[in-house]
Amino acid sequence: MSVADLAKPLMVMGLMSGTSVDGVDACLARIAMHDGHLQQEMIATYTQDIAPALRSRLLKAMSDPVMGLEALCALNVAVGELFAEAALGLLRTHHILAGEVDCIGSHGQTLFHWPPPPVQSDDETGTKRPLGGTLQIGEPSIIAEKTGIYTIADFRPRDMAAGGQGAPLVCYADRLLFQDEHYTRCIQNIGGIANVTVVPPRSTEQAESQPVMAFDTGPGNMLMDAAMMHFYGKPYDENGAVAATGTIHEALLVHLLGHPYLPLTPPKTTGREQFGEPFFKAQLAQFPGLEPADWLATLTEFTAQTIVDSYQRFIFPRYQVSEMILGGGGAYNAHLRQRLEHHLKAAGQVVSLKMHADFGIHDKYKEALAFAILAWAAFQRQPNNLPECTGASHPVIMGKHCF
Amino acid sequence: MSVADLAKPLMVMGLMSGTSVDGVDACLARIAMHDGHLQQEMIATYTQDIAPALRSRLLKAMSDPVMGLEALCALNVAVGELFAEAALGLLRTHHILAGEVDCIGSHGQTLFHWPPPPVQSDDETGTKRPLGGTLQIGEPSIIAEKTGIYTIADFRPRDMAAGGQGAPLVCYADRLLFQDEHYTRCIQNIGGIANVTVVPPRSTEQAESQPVMAFDTGPGNMLMDAAMMHFYGKPYDENGAVAATGTIHEALLVHLLGHPYLPLTPPKTTGREQFGEPFFKAQLAQFPGLEPADWLATLTEFTAQTIVDSYQRFIFPRYQVSEMILGGGGAYNAHLRQRLEHHLKAAGQVVSLKMHADFGIHDKYKEALAFAILAWAAFQRQPNNLPECTGASHPVIMGKHCF
Repeated sequence: MSVADLAKPLMVMGLMSGTSVDGVDACLARIAMHDGHLQQEMIATYTQDIAPALRSRLLKAMSDPVMGLEALCALNVAVGELFAEAALGLLRTHHILAGEVDCIGSHGQTLFHWPPPPVQSDDETGTKRPLGGTLQIGEPSIIAEKTGIYTIADFRPRDMAAGGQGAPLVCYADRLLFQDEHYTRCIQNIGGIANVTVVPPRSTEQAESQPVMAFDTGPGNMLMDAAMMHFYGKPYDENGAVAATGTIHEALLVHLLGHPYLPLTPPKTTGREQFGEPFFKAQLAQFPGLEPADWLATLTEFTAQTIVDSYQRFIFPRYQVSEMILGGGGAYNAHLRQRLEHHLKAAGQVVSLKMHADFGIHDKYKEALAFAILAWAAFQRQPNNLPECTGASHPVIMGKHCF
Repeated sequence: MSVADLAKPLMVMGLMSGTSVDGVDACLARIAMHDGHLQQEMIATYTQDIAPALRSRLLKAMSDPVMGLEALCALNVAVGELFAEAALGLLRTHHILAGEVDCIGSHGQTLFHWPPPPVQSDDETGTKRPLGGTLQIGEPSIIAEKTGIYTIADFRPRDMAAGGQGAPLVCYADRLLFQDEHYTRCIQNIGGIANVTVVPPRSTEQAESQPVMAFDTGPGNMLMDAAMMHFYGKPYDENGAVAATGTIHEALLVHLLGHPYLPLTPPKTTGREQFGEPFFKAQLAQFPGLEPADWLATLTEFTAQTIVDSYQRFIFPRYQVSEMILGGGGAYNAHLRQRLEHHLKAAGQVVSLKMHADFGIHDKYKEALAFAILAWAAFQRQPNNLPECTGASHPVIMGKHCF
């Protein structure tokens, strides 16, 4: 593959459904690379609703991961059909022909993610670590068949085969989308889980002390949303309005901050297994009698602190961070943003908070765009993992291709 | 892809593990096509043993398909590592460099196969049938990573996405390997499950009344082997020696021949779900007190009759069959062969029994060779399902590609 081929613009669709399972996001982008600079133009976006019954089956499979293989196969087919619907919906809505699209990148729906044990500082002896396992469903053969478009999916396993965590994956796109000539930027996504990509400036990236760094900081909206659903029957705390009226419960906060995930050294990932419904229910049982608004205030505070604490532990000591670029649903929670700013100032850091929109990127479709970019690279036979972020032993081409 | 490219010889490795889970067969073949005639030369073969603990985990997962997703992920990784070992073992043993191999085709290990309801004659109204599901494990990303070779795997889902049964797959290779100018041949494989491919002569293949036809006839060695293990602690009845000393129990035979799978109209597939350990145990409970040798005699007779009955129902009325070419472990069971010949004669058919070796094909590696041929086609971007055999609505390129 010659470098010249990378300059040829390709039309790539990205399909994404996150841990919240609240819809399949689809985007179509025109992507090309010139002199190592990615150029992307968002052509169209679309969101496919998930039928409540299917959403329930998915959430159940994630929170209680024991199921019959027949049910698993059926779910794989149903989610494959759902993702195909998302792709076809985008084409239909925007009057685009399948033949105009070069390829689709589908993240699928993560049902289970079992990363290998993280590398600790006393563990770099070269002993063979066991490989992790992961399970994305949403059969890509169905997407390829129903759309007639070359489909690339199931990205994580190849990175894990190379000893990586199979996550985070979006950091590859973050580097291509946000790298600045001079500033270090932290791309802070707050979805169900919160994750950060530290993108050092182009000028210092080659220095070993300044790699791209990415990891899950901890829970994103997952705990706040669980509390809203439990107490108010609503999916989320709009603008953090409920949390803003509550009082932080110190004992609960201290207890939460003792979670064993937080001090783990990156690369590291987490998920619904650690911060999902069962975890929330366990806290409820241990701290009976708190007011609903106090739960929201405390969980919002916990979420903010896990983010800033992660920066203090792992980022600020090594990087001069200029900007934090917020994304995901949590970016629109004004109370959470306020708590983030408060803690950043308290940490003595001058970091300006920005949004994806400030960079011309439609936040809601950012992760779908990331999977379009990952698929673009795989289509071009370019490695698309960042070993410094995933812990893989070397760059690999992630994704399985269906023609 | 121009036709000329098909003539270029490629080195392709096939990896296969059957329902008996008694080893991973690997073969390396040089494959090319000239004027629609496949040319293949077997370069090397190798069998990778399966550790007893892993075999037990796999058999358990197949016979009792409810498991935690973590265990499933771990099994997917372990089987992927096993298949990678098989590929590396072949290269090491035969002093072949990975760089000499163009691609690998891996069947994986089928854990669950849930085909769509078979099309019945009163069902051709064009109503939308639900898609089936299937689960092959043996992570191909691990095979690609550990060998450094382009790996194609998980063939069934694409055929099923096109409405097919996702099986049988080997019929594609059978047609390319065995098609004669004048004779109709039945390629009868007797593995854990028994399946047949009817290959009409090249001259009449285009006639709609004479398509390639393939389906599972029913149990192969599965029931005989289960009885041998239960009564004698041995994996199989060598040459049918035990069955030859027993007496057929008519009531048990009649009961077995009432199995609902047998009268189903092809295309159809079956597996361990229907004829595995639980089925054998259920028969044991219903027919207590039979002598072990009588069990073997009756199960061997049942197996032979399911094969010949299938021919009488679905093949002999439409095809003038000249040869039955036996393959699989059951082909070496002299008593079973004798019963097959007996029933063919009783049916008034003049069919000569042959073995794969009569065609220069090493029987033990025939299915591995078939997956090399399927991968060869996918690598060349050629459709590799036979819709007339699988029930798919059209030809598709099966297989997911890992670079």
